[in-house]
Amino acid sequence: MYRNNTCGALRASQINSEVTLSGWVHKIRDKGFMVWVDLRDRYGITQLVFDQDRTSAQLLEEAKALGRETVIQIKGQVIERASKNPNIPTGDIEVLVQELKILNESILPPFTIEDETDGGEDIRMKYRYLDIRRNPVKNNLMFRHKVTMEVRKYLSNQEFIEVETPYLIKSTPEGARDFLVPSRMNEGQFYALPQSPQTFKQLLMVGGMDKYFQIVKCFRDEDLRADRQPEFTQIDCEMAFVGQEDILNEFEGLTKHLLKEVHGIDSDDFPRMTYDDAMRLYGNDKPDIRFDMQFGELNPVAQHKDFNVFNSAELVVGISVPGGASYTRKEIDKLVDWVKRPQVGAKGMVYVKCNEDGTYKSSVDKFYDQDDLAKWAEVTNAKAGDLICVLSGNTNETRTQLSALRMELAERLGLRKSDEFAPLWVIDFPLLELDEETGTYHAMHHPFTSPKPGQLELLETNPGDVKANAYDLVLNGNEIGGGSIRIHDKEIQATMFKHLGFTPEEAKEQFGFLMDAFQYGAPPHGGIAFGLDRLVAILGGQETIRDFIAFPKNNSGRDVMIDAPASIDNEQLKELHLKLDL
Amino acid sequence: MYRNNTCGALRASQINSEVTLSGWVHKIRDKGFMVWVDLRDRYGITQLVFDQDRTSAQLLEEAKALGRETVIQIKGQVIERASKNPNIPTGDIEVLVQELKILNESILPPFTIEDETDGGEDIRMKYRYLDIRRNPVKNNLMFRHKVTMEVRKYLSNQEFIEVETPYLIKSTPEGARDFLVPSRMNEGQFYALPQSPQTFKQLLMVGGMDKYFQIVKCFRDEDLRADRQPEFTQIDCEMAFVGQEDILNEFEGLTKHLLKEVHGIDSDDFPRMTYDDAMRLYGNDKPDIRFDMQFGELNPVAQHKDFNVFNSAELVVGISVPGGASYTRKEIDKLVDWVKRPQVGAKGMVYVKCNEDGTYKSSVDKFYDQDDLAKWAEVTNAKAGDLICVLSGNTNETRTQLSALRMELAERLGLRKSDEFAPLWVIDFPLLELDEETGTYHAMHHPFTSPKPGQLELLETNPGDVKANAYDLVLNGNEIGGGSIRIHDKEIQATMFKHLGFTPEEAKEQFGFLMDAFQYGAPPHGGIAFGLDRLVAILGGQETIRDFIAFPKNNSGRDVMIDAPASIDNEQLKELHLKLDL
Repeated sequence: MYRNNTCGALRASQINSEVTLSGWVHKIRDKGFMVWVDLRDRYGITQLVFDQDRTSAQLLEEAKALGRETVIQIKGQVIERASKNPNIPTGDIEVLVQELKILNESILPPFTIEDETDGGEDIRMKYRYLDIRRNPVKNNLMFRHKVTMEVRKYLSNQEFIEVETPYLIKSTPEGARDFLVPSRMNEGQFYALPQSPQTFKQLLMVGGMDKYFQIVKCFRDEDLRADRQPEFTQIDCEMAFVGQEDILNEFEGLTKHLLKEVHGIDSDDFPRMTYDDAMRLYGNDKPDIRFDMQFGELNPVAQHKDFNVFNSAELVVGISVPGGASYTRKEIDKLVDWVKRPQVGAKGMVYVKCNEDGTYKSSVDKFYDQDDLAKWAEVTNAKAGDLICVLSGNTNETRTQLSALRMELAERLGLRKSDEFAPLWVIDFPLLELDEETGTYHAMHHPFTSPKPGQLELLETNPGDVKANAYDLVLNGNEIGGGSIRIHDKEIQATMFKHLGFTPEEAKEQFGFLMDAFQYGAPPHGGIAFGLDRLVAILGGQETIRDFIAFPKNNSGRDVMIDAPASIDNEQLKELHLKLDL
Repeated sequence: MYRNNTCGALRASQINSEVTLSGWVHKIRDKGFMVWVDLRDRYGITQLVFDQDRTSAQLLEEAKALGRETVIQIKGQVIERASKNPNIPTGDIEVLVQELKILNESILPPFTIEDETDGGEDIRMKYRYLDIRRNPVKNNLMFRHKVTMEVRKYLSNQEFIEVETPYLIKSTPEGARDFLVPSRMNEGQFYALPQSPQTFKQLLMVGGMDKYFQIVKCFRDEDLRADRQPEFTQIDCEMAFVGQEDILNEFEGLTKHLLKEVHGIDSDDFPRMTYDDAMRLYGNDKPDIRFDMQFGELNPVAQHKDFNVFNSAELVVGISVPGGASYTRKEIDKLVDWVKRPQVGAKGMVYVKCNEDGTYKSSVDKFYDQDDLAKWAEVTNAKAGDLICVLSGNTNETRTQLSALRMELAERLGLRKSDEFAPLWVIDFPLLELDEETGTYHAMHHPFTSPKPGQLELLETNPGDVKANAYDLVLNGNEIGGGSIRIHDKEIQATMFKHLGFTPEEAKEQFGFLMDAFQYGAPPHGGIAFGLDRLVAILGGQETIRDFIAFPKNNSGRDVMIDAPASIDNEQLKELHLKLDL
């Protein structure tokens, strides 16, 4: 038996007990006649004490010789601590050591195993098993487990059934690029790893499973942007005999449950906003509504004056920055520089200071009088002391730019509080998205998404205007889930494939089994999928998903710890009927 | 709203309620003036009634026209049923239909959606989404969910943390063949899909996670034997600061919990048996102990007479078949034929009838007298009325043959009861296994398994005799879990790799990151993994794992429903820097 207590367990009530503990040497303080060792395990830290009065000389020497991260087992007596440490749960006691056994030595770790480490990202990833010993990483992983368990408990109590769908499936041209798996037994053929279990969950609905979920790894072979992983985890859900309202209610319930269990927060019903409103008011389909700063569209009050920049713009739009009137000229110039950075891309920024005395001072005083600017303040909801920032240009680009500015300012103003949670349903997404390069439409969500009732006809005439029964759940400016009501009618699905540019042969080749299945009584159905990595990060008050993944990959898709991917034997290639083509 | 009740919900207490139901038309009985429809969903069946007195003529006609598996929605009134059906929970009521809406049509399914279907295995797999509508399949999937949830709840309550380990890892030559995943971003390199998260869970122990579990898909590219799947699910567990006893206790607790939650069974402590005893007493390392029929080794009492077959045999071994003395000559001849089948491979069988009058009649009366045979009966624990079956030859082969005969006879005698559960720990497995083809030893469990204390020296002289801290959990003659205490000492691990034929370079190349990790204070640790597919099947009283997998693959590793694996585009191959080599 290596221990009868963990390093987080002992309290004052156990004083005088004989205990056996095991763990890692976290820190040593050597005062010559006394040595204190912080012994660490997953559960906490317990202070061990060795001294020349109560410990054998040999034991004291052994303690002095201990290195950090050595694994030891000790037996000893719980005693009251002279100087209590109120910062840790075991701070009332220490253990006077009677026996010490070294279970395993450690060489010097490449970075310190402390909450604030001296190790950079790269070295911590290479030695991720040491990084995991640090509280911030360990706690994130434990938090992830807690969230995941709560998801499963909630859905299970709601009669959802977790069904495992296959990982070795078939490649489809739709969506992102697949990871492929060559088949040895079926020469020249390949499996694909799933980008999501989409078709399988729909087949489960055809199969009458009714309420399905699965927490499942998904795979996308994309060029990795910051904080994207080639493998990621989804909470995948689907229900039959439901409309959009049923799904929104069900998963609002789940999200409320998580906020309650994880943070003790009782949530009001989640607000809902159409996609069009989200774009208009926040320039973004995943607005962070922890703070206001809604967009005010200024075309009616800013155009048809002599300011040509605005007159020629498709959109003139502003936001009010709380307290921004006090910014110096230099600070404002810096803001203008910020929006002109290539990453944001604005050509310039007009500003209006709303002075405390009710007057306005703007960068366009030449063109606009106080009455004009008062109207701007009204539209952007600016009060005395605020600053109005105005961008103009092409509608889509300008919205994106102002949205970036809004988030940046909120960050600077401390309005994006990590312990505040503002969920929001964004609904009525467009069915199709125009690919500006090719001029063709593709599915915004995926090709199985149902258009809103009565809008099917629009597909022929105004495809970009067709709205879908599609929705996203947004939390603190991040999309944490998204889904749709699916098409369950074979004819409508065939029409959709046609509009997405599939020939009937291609549709049959790729989705034949789904089209076949729809002939045998497919129920109305719909679902949602949550990105678990992001959900956990946001609930944990952070935004970097990598910090919530035990063994993440870097931006080149490499696992630097195990050094994968790697070369393989020629023998293996041959068995797979493949040759390298470099 | 598609429904306010499911098809399994309504009871007599709801008589007179107005309800809305949705589901599939399961069966129709048309009596002309009345039509009954069984409406089915995941939750059950509700009888709908249409009749000419209480239903409009048009509605009655619509009901008559309904085809099987059509998806409908109805509104109606719950009424008392004239002839109650005690076999279903909704059998006291029926619903008098007032409105009927067809939600989706169905063409004729390729097999009947009934508990006993007319569809063969192949067609049911091709249309698995229809097969899943059938109770036996649906119930198996729901049972799997229940077992899985109970596993997670139990382990979570025991402070285990579920940690997700990566799916895109590195190929290792150890064990079975890997599935490989070509990397697009890292030219000419490959990921491998994990055969198990073995090294990652050990790294989590080095990382101080202490109690880890994961329910996770694993992959093996093996030629598929019956009832093996290329992707399968493991309950993967690891603990730090534990010895074998701790692990056995922890997971005996889990298994007892499952038997209790799933079948209401209170289990005694599980018996334990050494590997050597299991082989000696049952000829098998996963004995089914729901019944006795232990082997009796007859060498001392059957050799050194004039029967040369036995005299020249390494092992003479028998079992007693309860009631077998009444078998006719013809029945016994058939049994002899059975053991001589190539699948079993015995050269012959000697038998002894233990007559009710205390005398014996054997096939070798020429060589053995009544006293000799009485001794055989004693050794095999045969009583009056039993039949002793004796095989002889090379020890390993003879044990395997007699074990097959024991299972076959138990099956015939109805001793393998599907509602009886007999768990057993088999312990003290050999560390190494001789590959008779190459004459080399390889790890019986895996190369990280710890030899028993003090046996390391034996590795040099008698490698086959070294026992490991390795154990299997056996349930009803099936291995449902297996694990070991791992090596946590870098030096011992290096010694093991050497004995397994790795050069230091190969060991470093393949397991360098694990060896590196062991330098930084690896705690003593060990674990176990359960095959979830099999565990669920056995707990469900069945043995075919395919029946408990939603979308299984066939023996060629194909998913016949989606037709995978499949050819891919040349473009895709090119992106992966590969050429076919057929």
